[in-house]
Amino acid sequence: MAYEGITFRGSRSGQIHESRFLRQNLKPDEVAIKVTHSGICGTDLHFIHADMVLGHEGIGIVQEIGENCKALRIGDRVGWGYTYWSCGRCSACLTGHESYCPTAGKYGAHHLDQGSFGNLAIKSEQWVFRIPDGIESKYAAPLLCAGATVFSPMIEFLKPTDRVGIIGVGGLGHLAIQFAAKMGCDVIALSSTELKREDAINLGAREFYATDGSENLDLANYYKLLKPVATVIPLTISFEPMLVPTIPTIANGIKIVGTTPSGILAMIQTLEFAERNNIRPIIQEFPMTEVGIMEAMEKLRSGEIRYRAVLSWQLSDESA
Amino acid sequence: MAYEGITFRGSRSGQIHESRFLRQNLKPDEVAIKVTHSGICGTDLHFIHADMVLGHEGIGIVQEIGENCKALRIGDRVGWGYTYWSCGRCSACLTGHESYCPTAGKYGAHHLDQGSFGNLAIKSEQWVFRIPDGIESKYAAPLLCAGATVFSPMIEFLKPTDRVGIIGVGGLGHLAIQFAAKMGCDVIALSSTELKREDAINLGAREFYATDGSENLDLANYYKLLKPVATVIPLTISFEPMLVPTIPTIANGIKIVGTTPSGILAMIQTLEFAERNNIRPIIQEFPMTEVGIMEAMEKLRSGEIRYRAVLSWQLSDESA
Repeated sequence: MAYEGITFRGSRSGQIHESRFLRQNLKPDEVAIKVTHSGICGTDLHFIHADMVLGHEGIGIVQEIGENCKALRIGDRVGWGYTYWSCGRCSACLTGHESYCPTAGKYGAHHLDQGSFGNLAIKSEQWVFRIPDGIESKYAAPLLCAGATVFSPMIEFLKPTDRVGIIGVGGLGHLAIQFAAKMGCDVIALSSTELKREDAINLGAREFYATDGSENLDLANYYKLLKPVATVIPLTISFEPMLVPTIPTIANGIKIVGTTPSGILAMIQTLEFAERNNIRPIIQEFPMTEVGIMEAMEKLRSGEIRYRAVLSWQLSDESA
Repeated sequence: MAYEGITFRGSRSGQIHESRFLRQNLKPDEVAIKVTHSGICGTDLHFIHADMVLGHEGIGIVQEIGENCKALRIGDRVGWGYTYWSCGRCSACLTGHESYCPTAGKYGAHHLDQGSFGNLAIKSEQWVFRIPDGIESKYAAPLLCAGATVFSPMIEFLKPTDRVGIIGVGGLGHLAIQFAAKMGCDVIALSSTELKREDAINLGAREFYATDGSENLDLANYYKLLKPVATVIPLTISFEPMLVPTIPTIANGIKIVGTTPSGILAMIQTLEFAERNNIRPIIQEFPMTEVGIMEAMEKLRSGEIRYRAVLSWQLSDESA
């Protein structure tokens, strides 16, 4: 049985182009997914000039399963995120940090012909997750990358007794505020614009501060806010190094912890925790078409999305 | 009863001067200690141009105890290190991280008339530690700062199954190699000079690499040596910031953890662990005199100390 579908690729010019998806068969551990929704992440914008299928916050329905699949069934509503494969045998994999597996397959770096901007995806079952019944698909999509990215370090490094500062109220930050608040933390939101105060408070922040607006990798700017033994979790993607003040770090026992959505369990727990605690992204929907994707990407680039763009085939079909 | 003694101070010119110690009485929580030995730390060299009594790796015998002292007795052989006071009620104190107490008293920053370069010190009992019988005083001294500085993060962040790279085989590094080896870790030593290979191996390193010699705060230089989810523990004192590569930190789950000898329990455990596992510094002894201190300081400055200088009143008395 062959698998054929539509996908949407970036291009050198930064235009999105519709292309074809074609695979002859499933590997034993793979599932074929009819995609219904995809979130749009800042990382997709980073890759818009690459000739690759974009998207890594996919939601869809399982159409077929390979002969060795164990957990998923045809008809399951599922999703996937940034990582799509890990070896299962290295120290990272065997300690629940599978996305740090040195041979992990990750969006962008390895796999240019598959993404969630399209109507069909074939994925290893290992990194595909059943969506809890209580979360609508359009709200589930952003949880698979933005949500897991913030929840994963929180569940590893925060305690409910902590005071937590969230810097930036955007796609990740607006979910981070909710997760931290629902963990019982004392949540402070910092944003470059006063306009987000009301949203931040409504999402669960107890305090809000508008900063001077400069996105900054010099951690000295934030050190005066930190208590001793504080943990800093940078989630900014940058090719520039962070500047970390040496003596204050040592004298105050500060930890700087790099993280990506770090494991299979963390992905599952992100979804479960969000369902149980009624955590949902605030989204703007766009049709899954060349035009819809370009419009969403432009708004993302100019900072107009409140707070996560989600592409939907349903809208696309209605607009067709 | 008044307390009078000799102390040795730095001065603007960088010369060591003998001065007088005078206190009218003990506070209820204080003990008076007849100093017998002091280690010399790189931090003493930082403060040699300050008009303050130097030294924070003190060893001596308790002469008197205040009325509220609970743990120590007259005649006890004791030592102290970098921190000499903490509040006991803040979150840092109440989680065993007393040296991060925002009001902690620390060497150099707060207390200019007391140090271990001298023959008398009056200290709060809280931060004075009984020296285990199995450790000679001259070997105990460097454990109070150099030893605790490396052991404290090791016992908090390392596991015996870890592979540990020690960068720099000096006062701290030569103790770090021993502690890590005796914890059962796979120990790698890196030094700017091939000359330290044999010492490093004898101290417990299984591998040794001579590096290009540049002491460097750009962590990118070391990232190729790190496994995923590795922990970096910088112990270099510098007013320059560390440069931390942003994407590699996030993608590989790297932690950068600032630490100082972090608690009262860690100080006690440093001494106990060293006694039980026969960990001793390699030392060079100098008399506790102006001349002896200056000679040791000069050798420290020029990198000639193998591996920790210790001042001794016994030598001083013999030389007198």
